[in-house]
Amino acid sequence: MLDASIADSTIVLALPRGRILRDVMPLVKRAGIEPEAAFDDPKTRKLLFDTNDPNVKIVRVRSFDVATFVAFGAAQLGVAGNDVLMEFDYPEVYAPLDLGIGKCRMSVAEPAAMVASDDPSRWSHVRVATKYPSITRKHFAARGVQAECIELSGAMELAPNLGLCRRIVDLVETGSTLKANGLVEVEHIADITSRLAVNRAALKTRPDEMGAWIERFREAIEDVSDADAA
Amino acid sequence: MLDASIADSTIVLALPRGRILRDVMPLVKRAGIEPEAAFDDPKTRKLLFDTNDPNVKIVRVRSFDVATFVAFGAAQLGVAGNDVLMEFDYPEVYAPLDLGIGKCRMSVAEPAAMVASDDPSRWSHVRVATKYPSITRKHFAARGVQAECIELSGAMELAPNLGLCRRIVDLVETGSTLKANGLVEVEHIADITSRLAVNRAALKTRPDEMGAWIERFREAIEDVSDADAA
Repeated sequence: MLDASIADSTIVLALPRGRILRDVMPLVKRAGIEPEAAFDDPKTRKLLFDTNDPNVKIVRVRSFDVATFVAFGAAQLGVAGNDVLMEFDYPEVYAPLDLGIGKCRMSVAEPAAMVASDDPSRWSHVRVATKYPSITRKHFAARGVQAECIELSGAMELAPNLGLCRRIVDLVETGSTLKANGLVEVEHIADITSRLAVNRAALKTRPDEMGAWIERFREAIEDVSDADAA
Repeated sequence: MLDASIADSTIVLALPRGRILRDVMPLVKRAGIEPEAAFDDPKTRKLLFDTNDPNVKIVRVRSFDVATFVAFGAAQLGVAGNDVLMEFDYPEVYAPLDLGIGKCRMSVAEPAAMVASDDPSRWSHVRVATKYPSITRKHFAARGVQAECIELSGAMELAPNLGLCRRIVDLVETGSTLKANGLVEVEHIADITSRLAVNRAALKTRPDEMGAWIERFREAIEDVSDADAA
């Protein structure tokens, strides 16, 4: 038996698992989408959920996979950080809205003990542990530095202490994880927030419907901004 | 303040996070390594742990990252599935021991509804969702089939139902997840178990010490086999 059946008229919304979901759900609900009860059951093994709208399903996947689901049309809509969107740089993904949540930054960090004697303007080659090899290579190539990337999916902040490499490119929110590992930020690469991601083919073939969804998310964000301003 | 200081004499053991850890820890303990209490605290944010042996630290990372930590010498020892070892195929990693845990298989699966009309021997090009693009391409290339891989880190079993692609390559343990998603296995790629992974440079520069650790893990496995046989 399948988790749910998918018709041509279905809109699949891909949402990221993990901490960011807490910030995403109020927006999704203000846009009029209420997932079935199983969505809030921490023990569920379901990945695809019904909602109050018979035409809308939610799929909950890793944040990196959100972009791929949307790019290949497995989801028509998604919520993904611009870190993920920049890393894949899928031409099939249109990101019309900054949702203003999941704020953090992408930075280059290195051991505090190195900083005094290290001049980034003199780098010609760097070895970097990161989840973002494509962004990292582009960032350094733009100023003529060749970056050798060691791809890790997590625990980047351990890499310098364990001798994997001296520098990392990672997301930084408060900076407390870096600090706890004796690291400091030495370059800022980008500011990160979550975006609404839209499959371009769906937007072309179902413009009214997809346009209406974008509008509902836009209003959902404005509701928050208004509440913040009041 | 750092999580722990790393001396040249330290042995770092990289262990995979998640479900497999339950099966790994009894072996690690029989090999004489007892992690500090924080290791069992589900709320800890620590990644690097002290043990009863002042020369041994444990780092807990994603299974894919275990291979990278060992290959680059950030860990001298690790536990990783041969799925991960095959995918990366790092020449710097030596895998002398099958630990006999984490048993599953890697398979090609497709919708049950397709099977009757689908003849794998006539494929010339397949589009496959997988976490293992390198293994997948090699598997298909060996019989002249070109595989276009869509890389996902999870939720592969959703891909056929959502129209991402019709086939997936994934790990299968009991088969219940495939079944729940209307998929069936059509090809077996490899049998998977966890292996002891050893950094080759460490084995060359510290042969007695590393050799002794391999021996301790070998004895730890034999203890289990003896208990099973009794």
